[in-house]
Amino acid sequence: MIPTLEWTADGVRFLDQTKLPLEETYVLATSYRQVADVITTMVVRGAPAIGVSAAMGVALGVKESKATSISDLTTEFGAICNTLAATRPTAVNLFWAIAHMRDLFSALASKPGITREGIADALIKEAQVMYDEDIAACKTMGANGAELLPETGGVLTHCNAGALATCGYGTALGVIRAAVERGRAIHVYADETRPFLQGARLTAWELMHDGIPTTVLCDNMAASLMRQGKIKAVVVGADRIAANGDVANKIGTYNVAILAKEHGIPFYVAAPWSTIDTATPTGDGIPIEQRPEREVTHHAGKQLTPHGVGIENPAFDVTPAKYVTAIITERGVLRAPYAESLAELEAIPTAR
Amino acid sequence: MIPTLEWTADGVRFLDQTKLPLEETYVLATSYRQVADVITTMVVRGAPAIGVSAAMGVALGVKESKATSISDLTTEFGAICNTLAATRPTAVNLFWAIAHMRDLFSALASKPGITREGIADALIKEAQVMYDEDIAACKTMGANGAELLPETGGVLTHCNAGALATCGYGTALGVIRAAVERGRAIHVYADETRPFLQGARLTAWELMHDGIPTTVLCDNMAASLMRQGKIKAVVVGADRIAANGDVANKIGTYNVAILAKEHGIPFYVAAPWSTIDTATPTGDGIPIEQRPEREVTHHAGKQLTPHGVGIENPAFDVTPAKYVTAIITERGVLRAPYAESLAELEAIPTAR
Repeated sequence: MIPTLEWTADGVRFLDQTKLPLEETYVLATSYRQVADVITTMVVRGAPAIGVSAAMGVALGVKESKATSISDLTTEFGAICNTLAATRPTAVNLFWAIAHMRDLFSALASKPGITREGIADALIKEAQVMYDEDIAACKTMGANGAELLPETGGVLTHCNAGALATCGYGTALGVIRAAVERGRAIHVYADETRPFLQGARLTAWELMHDGIPTTVLCDNMAASLMRQGKIKAVVVGADRIAANGDVANKIGTYNVAILAKEHGIPFYVAAPWSTIDTATPTGDGIPIEQRPEREVTHHAGKQLTPHGVGIENPAFDVTPAKYVTAIITERGVLRAPYAESLAELEAIPTAR
Repeated sequence: MIPTLEWTADGVRFLDQTKLPLEETYVLATSYRQVADVITTMVVRGAPAIGVSAAMGVALGVKESKATSISDLTTEFGAICNTLAATRPTAVNLFWAIAHMRDLFSALASKPGITREGIADALIKEAQVMYDEDIAACKTMGANGAELLPETGGVLTHCNAGALATCGYGTALGVIRAAVERGRAIHVYADETRPFLQGARLTAWELMHDGIPTTVLCDNMAASLMRQGKIKAVVVGADRIAANGDVANKIGTYNVAILAKEHGIPFYVAAPWSTIDTATPTGDGIPIEQRPEREVTHHAGKQLTPHGVGIENPAFDVTPAKYVTAIITERGVLRAPYAESLAELEAIPTAR
């Protein structure tokens, strides 16, 4: 099991993804502000993982609070949630998880005789349930999507939508793991995913950890491999899915979707239901985070570009629904028209 | 003037492109073997530049020869040409330039009373003429292609097809320079071009040198910028153009061509006539160089990928002719069907 993040008695422990693949080190966040820093600096990343991280950050903030009344705690709680919500704008799981914790807090805070400790215990327990549910959702997604992958051959993925982007197992890589567990002979082609190199560093690391054959390519090599027939399917994760099926995901996903369409290769998106944002009608309404220029201009402390040149560094792009062959969720596999299939599954009450 | 390469009394002097953009240093090759090394290690790169570099290498080899008879020199000359031809397989300009020098050598060697010095002088002079002609061809290409670019707006280029890829002025960047000289307000978007980063390092450096506004993006960001309407045209260079108009160029060019087509953006290729290989019927016949894995796995001495993961590193890809809006050459602008337009211009005798 890959220890992406974990609640401990001393705080939230994160595998430091900025140091992978060569160093396996951990960061222990002992305050909600440290959890916020860990999300902002991408020590932890991936929409489902940052959702649960934020929930744990909220729980940690209440646990560490010095508030002496529920009224003071409620004010402080608002600040905790706002700090965690301000870390990254695109992944909707972050806002979903914080909203979930807010609802629980409101319900608890209005109970007569409730204490800060009582609220903290309930929030900690809830964050741990969300952690377990995230892994369970990934495994169900894997089971739902496995048969969409080829019996044998190459599957391209972009960025890291794996155990490292979730609490475990992964979304896109969960579908690949499930296919491999069912005996499919899949060779993963991992886009290196500039500028942060989540593919080269993280996807390669976790798939090698599991013994799944993996080849890293530069992002600009995908079309050439598709033309050679090396890629039979594409599967990626998502940071937010609009009500019409438009998919925000790591920058470069839209490139891959177009290339797949041009070569007649199916393009699958795997994401938990918490990634679906039916309140946002289309991809145009999804805020796209701009990351610091230095991620593009420098590597390993060395400057790559001339001084003063302009830099683009959007962290995400939006793939219009028309390029998406299917969306694989823990509730089922959705097909176009997504406005209808999403609304249909949205209406089904969940087990909890 | 950017001093990409230059014949000097002491040998061939190269601007070391592996050290740009932060260091402007030079390598003086004093033997043909050193010229071959400089080409293999990409101290100099770009199809037109390596063509002229090889011609200068051939001239240098004859100049430095210790052969005491024309017969011995002829044997040595074959070895010189073979060494230079074995440096890189894809750019046809290399083979074109060596063949041109072979023809001249043969004509000279059969002359009664010819000396090694006489042959060397003629070859040196010819290499310098090829150098001048390369710059002149780029300027004519620029004049021919300038009006194809937008009056104002973004133009995307991939890799470096600039002064650094030629003896001066550039092919794709020559067209951009010519458009800017004619008053067009062009903002260049330069794909960083993994793994060797010719765009981030070289295109950005030489356009900033000329004061042309430039923004560097990661290769996977192009589709997103196209969708935002930031890119009005694409112009790239070429390493070899087959008789049917298929274009081999830096890996990732095929990606960009597909993205341009999908967004209704014109995709132009600028290349001197020496890049056209009518002896190769289609792109399938163009050999694609595989470069060392370390270019992908390491940067600035730091390893990016986990130990032992598979790596793809093709240096080039082939863009089928159907994606190419026009091919800009010094003889004119070609349009589909390329088999016909190429054959038509091929038949026109050149000035020399």
